[in-house]
Amino acid sequence: MPDFGSLFSINANNMKASTIRELLKLTQKPDIISFAGGLPAPEVFPVEDLRAAANVIFDTKAKQALQYGTTEGDDGLREELIKFEQKQGVELKKENLLVVSASQQALDIVAKLFLDPGDYVIAGRPTYLGALQAIQSYSAKVLGIPFSEAQDGFDMDALRKRHAEAVAGGKKIKYIYVIPDFQNPAGFCWSLEKRKALLEFAYETGLPILEDSPYREIRFLGEAIPSIYQLDQRGANKGVVINLKTFSKILVPGARMGWIMADPAVISKCVVAKQAMDLCTNVFTQMWIAEYMRTGKLDAVIRSTRELYKVKRNHMVEALERYMPKRADIRWTRPEGGLFLWLTLPESIDTDRLLLKAIEKKVAFVAGSGFYADEPEHNSMRMNFSYPSLEQIEEGVKRLGLAVKEAIDESERR
Amino acid sequence: MPDFGSLFSINANNMKASTIRELLKLTQKPDIISFAGGLPAPEVFPVEDLRAAANVIFDTKAKQALQYGTTEGDDGLREELIKFEQKQGVELKKENLLVVSASQQALDIVAKLFLDPGDYVIAGRPTYLGALQAIQSYSAKVLGIPFSEAQDGFDMDALRKRHAEAVAGGKKIKYIYVIPDFQNPAGFCWSLEKRKALLEFAYETGLPILEDSPYREIRFLGEAIPSIYQLDQRGANKGVVINLKTFSKILVPGARMGWIMADPAVISKCVVAKQAMDLCTNVFTQMWIAEYMRTGKLDAVIRSTRELYKVKRNHMVEALERYMPKRADIRWTRPEGGLFLWLTLPESIDTDRLLLKAIEKKVAFVAGSGFYADEPEHNSMRMNFSYPSLEQIEEGVKRLGLAVKEAIDESERR
Repeated sequence: MPDFGSLFSINANNMKASTIRELLKLTQKPDIISFAGGLPAPEVFPVEDLRAAANVIFDTKAKQALQYGTTEGDDGLREELIKFEQKQGVELKKENLLVVSASQQALDIVAKLFLDPGDYVIAGRPTYLGALQAIQSYSAKVLGIPFSEAQDGFDMDALRKRHAEAVAGGKKIKYIYVIPDFQNPAGFCWSLEKRKALLEFAYETGLPILEDSPYREIRFLGEAIPSIYQLDQRGANKGVVINLKTFSKILVPGARMGWIMADPAVISKCVVAKQAMDLCTNVFTQMWIAEYMRTGKLDAVIRSTRELYKVKRNHMVEALERYMPKRADIRWTRPEGGLFLWLTLPESIDTDRLLLKAIEKKVAFVAGSGFYADEPEHNSMRMNFSYPSLEQIEEGVKRLGLAVKEAIDESERR
Repeated sequence: MPDFGSLFSINANNMKASTIRELLKLTQKPDIISFAGGLPAPEVFPVEDLRAAANVIFDTKAKQALQYGTTEGDDGLREELIKFEQKQGVELKKENLLVVSASQQALDIVAKLFLDPGDYVIAGRPTYLGALQAIQSYSAKVLGIPFSEAQDGFDMDALRKRHAEAVAGGKKIKYIYVIPDFQNPAGFCWSLEKRKALLEFAYETGLPILEDSPYREIRFLGEAIPSIYQLDQRGANKGVVINLKTFSKILVPGARMGWIMADPAVISKCVVAKQAMDLCTNVFTQMWIAEYMRTGKLDAVIRSTRELYKVKRNHMVEALERYMPKRADIRWTRPEGGLFLWLTLPESIDTDRLLLKAIEKKVAFVAGSGFYADEPEHNSMRMNFSYPSLEQIEEGVKRLGLAVKEAIDESERR
């Protein structure tokens, strides 16, 4: 065999096989109640309506749907996406849109377009693991910014300080990555003020904002807050925001379908990058989803998803109140949307180790450490409430409460 | 707007918007007969059988097919791929296989895994444009190798000479890219001897071979020759070959579905890379194609494709004999498979300019220059025979013959 190790690129050597994703496999055993994944609830997948839409494509446009398509994306799908965004107050033209094979591909495209080895991306501490993987796969690094105590966005003082230090230290920062709507993993939502402040910061520094909005439509409590993309559009309209959306959480993830919204200058560069990556996204699926959107039924699916997730979220919060030890240093976020909440434990507890104990008790979560590019915090965990059933939430949180209690007892005996 | 130009990566600045793909858009006007694309013939798409298979998935596995899947690919699809390859004499285990979003994604993954800026890939002169784009998108370069006079593979003396010079000059070569079965763009097929010689060269130099085989099954004349992947497997079995396959030419391209066959050490690295690129390939389509394969009907589609392409290829060759000026310096390949032939004109003719004249006459092709990473030859063109109808082939070649005649007359008047 060739000595592949000596032939692999620097990028390849910087890629990290996600230990989380490896652990996810362990937690998929049928007897384990898993709060670990990020799977949407299959009970709201509109199977029969999707079947009908697919059959319309077979009836009317099969040969076109089975042929190659353009890199930019199917015209019909882009028209539906423009209407979908318009209903939320976002104004788009086709040249602001690129259809992608879901958000992870968008994270890859943007990373490839901007990042040279050693470059930096500003991102939250913690932040989405897949974004970290994309950044690291181009040998770039993350300048981590803590969130405010109020959990309403970045600690803006820390942002300014870390940015100034980095610039003074000669670090090249290329963009700012944020998930303002129901942040993954922590679940909280950025306030309007913090969104505006970040946009101002982007204007001042000339840095683009990569706004990842997979959960934006999954708000089950409170009022929608404009996206940063919208705030720019309604205000100075400087085109500094690249906004990522996906069907994975509002319809089905198996379609691997999403879209990028950005200034046409960015989109046209993304098209060139994507062409060399996969020529175009699955054409049949694009036309199929467009056909489904034309039925007007997507809004109802999103409403059902919100209703269901609200019930599941409430059930998890109530179960935590019931089963977690009552201590000031055990707390969790109460998200108004999305799929996750974030549980913080006493500093003496390492959730990487706690996970082993939890798996013994047949319950699983994601240890928080995986969501930090460096200097991870070890006493937190991400819990998914969209996928498990109410019964599983009840029983799983009960088992988890027991595991936490035992871990605290052990740590206090030491 | 941020100064995106100053923020884009070196890779982004090395990405080339393919002028060919831009031109393709021009040639898609309905009144133009186009030999320019690389589209398979839609008349062989098995629409009703594909519809039936999709409906089986809706009936039996919808929720799973619409959910996230593993990066490695659907188990059922990988089982079918193993059987499909076994019928051709290729022995695989699941760990030799990665499902990808068609070959272009595989070209991107391999380039990302191996190429640092300034690295080299050995490839033919000419070679597939999409492979060049993938390589250039990581700021790497191509060491171009001419083909032999007999058009049976690389000129092996030239390969050894260029390789030795490059190594002596400190160039880092990472892999060898070839399309042995019906080379794109030239259409010819590598002989058994040349395949063996290249494999030996790989063993000697420790370089992996990236064998791209999108057209392997589309042989309509002569006997199949073992792939280089097979030759390695049957011989020293050193695992030096990474073989790329796709459904784009044997079934439908709109499904964006292909597979990589390689040593497990390479596959596991590809999995890590792909995870950061798109998490997984379209799950619904994977299960749908697997279901279609289980019907056993793919072989018949491949047979029909071969029959149809043979008729079209013959028709194009005969039309060229009828309509092209009879000169020793006008010649074309007579491919035994695939979708393309390669036409060479007198050296005085620049096909980039000829294309403009051809488009005036409502016929299009791809100028050969786009298939060279550097120092392009200018007197050749790629002609696709799979997509146009027999009538279009007849009329289009007639128009092209006229354009060539006029161009020669003009060049001789100068």
